[in-house]
Amino acid sequence: MTLAQEAPPRTTARKPAPLHASLIVQGRDRTGIVAAVGSLLSSHGANIVSLDQYSDNPQGGAFFQRTVFSLDNLKAVLPAIEQDLQERLAKDFELEFTLRDMSVPKRVAIFASKSDHCLLDLLWRQRQGQLPVTVSMVISNHPDTAEEVRGFGIPFFHVPSMGPDKSAAEAEHLRLLRGNVDFIVLARYMQIISGDFITEVGVPIINIHHSFLPAFIGAGPYAKAKERGVKLVGATAHYVTEDLDEGPIIEQDVVRVTHAETAADLQRRGADVERAVLSRAVQWHSQDRVIRNGNHTIVFA
Amino acid sequence: MTLAQEAPPRTTARKPAPLHASLIVQGRDRTGIVAAVGSLLSSHGANIVSLDQYSDNPQGGAFFQRTVFSLDNLKAVLPAIEQDLQERLAKDFELEFTLRDMSVPKRVAIFASKSDHCLLDLLWRQRQGQLPVTVSMVISNHPDTAEEVRGFGIPFFHVPSMGPDKSAAEAEHLRLLRGNVDFIVLARYMQIISGDFITEVGVPIINIHHSFLPAFIGAGPYAKAKERGVKLVGATAHYVTEDLDEGPIIEQDVVRVTHAETAADLQRRGADVERAVLSRAVQWHSQDRVIRNGNHTIVFA
Amino acid sequence: MTLAQEAPPRTTARKPAPLHASLIVQGRDRTGIVAAVGSLLSSHGANIVSLDQYSDNPQGGAFFQRTVFSLDNLKAVLPAIEQDLQERLAKDFELEFTLRDMSVPKRVAIFASKSDHCLLDLLWRQRQGQLPVTVSMVISNHPDTAEEVRGFGIPFFHVPSMGPDKSAAEAEHLRLLRGNVDFIVLARYMQIISGDFITEVGVPIINIHHSFLPAFIGAGPYAKAKERGVKLVGATAHYVTEDLDEGPIIEQDVVRVTHAETAADLQRRGADVERAVLSRAVQWHSQDRVIRNGNHTIVFA
Amino acid sequence: MTLAQEAPPRTTARKPAPLHASLIVQGRDRTGIVAAVGSLLSSHGANIVSLDQYSDNPQGGAFFQRTVFSLDNLKAVLPAIEQDLQERLAKDFELEFTLRDMSVPKRVAIFASKSDHCLLDLLWRQRQGQLPVTVSMVISNHPDTAEEVRGFGIPFFHVPSMGPDKSAAEAEHLRLLRGNVDFIVLARYMQIISGDFITEVGVPIINIHHSFLPAFIGAGPYAKAKERGVKLVGATAHYVTEDLDEGPIIEQDVVRVTHAETAADLQRRGADVERAVLSRAVQWHSQDRVIRNGNHTIVFA
Repeated sequence: MTLAQEAPPRTTARKPAPLHASLIVQGRDRTGIVAAVGSLLSSHGANIVSLDQYSDNPQGGAFFQRTVFSLDNLKAVLPAIEQDLQERLAKDFELEFTLRDMSVPKRVAIFASKSDHCLLDLLWRQRQGQLPVTVSMVISNHPDTAEEVRGFGIPFFHVPSMGPDKSAAEAEHLRLLRGNVDFIVLARYMQIISGDFITEVGVPIINIHHSFLPAFIGAGPYAKAKERGVKLVGATAHYVTEDLDEGPIIEQDVVRVTHAETAADLQRRGADVERAVLSRAVQWHSQDRVIRNGNHTIVFA
Repeated sequence: MTLAQEAPPRTTARKPAPLHASLIVQGRDRTGIVAAVGSLLSSHGANIVSLDQYSDNPQGGAFFQRTVFSLDNLKAVLPAIEQDLQERLAKDFELEFTLRDMSVPKRVAIFASKSDHCLLDLLWRQRQGQLPVTVSMVISNHPDTAEEVRGFGIPFFHVPSMGPDKSAAEAEHLRLLRGNVDFIVLARYMQIISGDFITEVGVPIINIHHSFLPAFIGAGPYAKAKERGVKLVGATAHYVTEDLDEGPIIEQDVVRVTHAETAADLQRRGADVERAVLSRAVQWHSQDRVIRNGNHTIVFA
Repeated sequence: MTLAQEAPPRTTARKPAPLHASLIVQGRDRTGIVAAVGSLLSSHGANIVSLDQYSDNPQGGAFFQRTVFSLDNLKAVLPAIEQDLQERLAKDFELEFTLRDMSVPKRVAIFASKSDHCLLDLLWRQRQGQLPVTVSMVISNHPDTAEEVRGFGIPFFHVPSMGPDKSAAEAEHLRLLRGNVDFIVLARYMQIISGDFITEVGVPIINIHHSFLPAFIGAGPYAKAKERGVKLVGATAHYVTEDLDEGPIIEQDVVRVTHAETAADLQRRGADVERAVLSRAVQWHSQDRVIRNGNHTIVFA
Repeated sequence: MTLAQEAPPRTTARKPAPLHASLIVQGRDRTGIVAAVGSLLSSHGANIVSLDQYSDNPQGGAFFQRTVFSLDNLKAVLPAIEQDLQERLAKDFELEFTLRDMSVPKRVAIFASKSDHCLLDLLWRQRQGQLPVTVSMVISNHPDTAEEVRGFGIPFFHVPSMGPDKSAAEAEHLRLLRGNVDFIVLARYMQIISGDFITEVGVPIINIHHSFLPAFIGAGPYAKAKERGVKLVGATAHYVTEDLDEGPIIEQDVVRVTHAETAADLQRRGADVERAVLSRAVQWHSQDRVIRNGNHTIVFA
């Protein structure tokens, strides 16, 4: 039994306050990058709130840094910081950088099919304030979840996608998405995405695959897992590339199963892992914690 | 990316089909109990689908057995089986038993306050077919979740419970519950339950406590956890007794946290554990997998 | 800080006392098996200590049961029980059964190479009384661990195995093993085992593979895991069959890793999982908790 | 089955090469600290290999930073860096700092009693190169593990400690330890350590407590865990302070248990968690990854 006097949840140090910005820097490692970034931000009066860095080889390997800083007059000063970064980092150090005002939530479109566990979990977490995103729309090839999605105050678009030719559906998707979203989440959207669509839409796409990749690539992973007799089933969130289930992995997790569970049981047990893994991947992506490096990710979680 | 041709989830071997019954037997361990139960069920043509047993000491300790059996004409034969059990087990072996037709889902009332994570997770899972229960009603001391609950087609009753005297609220609870429920779930219901209420209502009550008991008993466990500097936070589902947070534990789990997380972060991370732990406890209770033994539980999960 | 007055570990209920026997029954499911086994054991005065059963389909599927029973004059009565089982189960129910006096520990040979983490963990656990086995010998293709193994009082045989032709080494293995062991454990033995050897030696062989199968089959799984960018690495204990890494899985587990860990780090993190997974598999096998069913295992853990 | 051609483990990026140093900085948070540290290190030609920082409140809270840097002529330059840090950080920013040449392993004394699982695991990991420490000695109040410890080439001292008065034993401990160790590990040393000893010895002491603190403080935690009926048992590594089991927690973990396990089973299951948790704590401490802050720890793992 629990008592009544528990205080309401306070806002958290992790959820960036309105005046925070993130700076992602990547390129070839060299002496002095951390100092240069630090000095540049200090010179504008910015206070570094968190800093993570990783180098795959300090002798000239690839370097990655995520810095979150706070600044009272952030919006006014950001252009000057960007210009300085352009001068110092891009020219002197030959680094690439991305600077982002974290007070503006990223806009996401969620694609779903009939299964609603991943979709509803994302919508519920967004409503709770756990995900710093604006859900611009939900697109589904089935109408089943329309009412529930709209109950969250979010636009729902039903775009049927039958047969092998997805071009009409994808054209409709592009009309809806263009200019409206910063990334896309496939929340158990059981349709193939074409390479053309990935190129055209031009924003990152996160998929949840219902197995511990690279085990059980492709369709029906729970049936395959049952067939192989594994003792754990898992899920994998990854960025979508043209190669089926081969994109850079963001997050994975597993749950223990036994001989007594059927393929349908595995599917149900796995569904809990899928929604947990996907929500972590979406949270990290929306907080600029994930950096892509070829087919790998650097995750400053 | 995942392909489209995945089959829909099949019904599972774990979800009892209409013609299953559960038999819980407990008492002092003696030679021949398993054989006696097996013979008795065989003599009625019943097929044992699953059998778990546990003895805390084979030399005269306490014995516990859960048997699930199937029978084509179950409803017709159940009274005869019950009579036989009464003769054989209760008289010859001095055992207690409970026989239940599993095709009739248990009826549950869920108590909630403002937090909706445990409540919604139970309602989702019930709608998905994961929990073999009928949710008879939701009772809350706050009106906030009324619309959402009713969207699931479930009656919602707002019973305010202010001040230290809960007797009026509890009288109202009893009016609503009496005869209508087989067990109660406190899904983060932040109110003290009186010993009188527990006695009067006469059905098991499952609570979710937001810590790894017996650590952080009472109010504000996440603040206490932050204060102590623990590296894991947890949740505990237990049967409610008169002693605050001291009832028999059904299930527990934890999640890793770091120094960088605030008490509010711990609360948010813990919420995921709470809903997972509570849903497992409710599932197991509703499938007769939990046997109380003093302040312990036997869980045949 | 911990106080001094802690009691020494008592012997455990799990470690079978001298007078326990295990009975494994498998075959086609039918009404009355549990009752028949129970009655038969009762009729000899045996007390059932633990009973687990599993049927993959109660309507005529495959049935598996593990029963542990105690009996004061076990050794005297066991032949009579075996004869009865032969009459009742084998003839009437067409079931196969295995009856084993658990007071006699199984004899195991451990094969190792240079890595000692799995080998030493098994020897430690055996010395602690955690594994009810007699380690008959350790065979290695490298002499490195000889002194350490002999320090445990266990015979060590160095059998070099160079080049693709393993026939001389395997002939030597067979000379050492024949009649001396009940099962074999490959504790990171980095050599291929031939199908002929598996047939000739005639006892179960348990291998630990250093990945979460079926991901990263074959050599170099940690390098492959690093290349793919997975966020968990794992290990798999399985029975050895002629097909490389395709045998029935007994146990698996994983550990979380990050982008910052090299392939060598993964190898080190994975080593902890390997030894944990292998020790569980060996414990369960030695307690008759694992039943093979085609390429699957039933594990009554 | 695994193939033979696996490469031997390479040395890892995590294990600092001889030319690395660690710099721990802590104090009140202010704008410009990261830049100041970075510039100072750059000015000496040092390359930052890894950097972690944490502030419990960017507006003037407590600030903690761990920086690892490499430098070719490290030993020659370190005094100059130290002087600069003294000038810049200590004077200008009022920060405390610790600078350490990581090529010199920390010297540890391990205290043990009869249980050897934590002791042997530490010695084995040290031999494997997983723990960057020199084990100066093992001190035990029982002679049981003498031979095994000396087999690792490590001095073993038997210092009996009977009765409530520990002063003679502690005097002997101090004679052995003084000047010889940088920290102490209590590897299931089942004796109370006095406040005087903690003060006199003057180096950090790490203890492993065999429960998930703050649950089950004091003696006999596994018996208490069995009595309470918990579903997980755990272990906690913490720095030792005068208050029994109340020191700052470094690391914790848990393992799942069931009703069927006795207190002795819990003890055996918990032993695996104890050695894993303790080895992580010792590794992190020896790599300067743990910063004490009152009764909390910052762990840059």
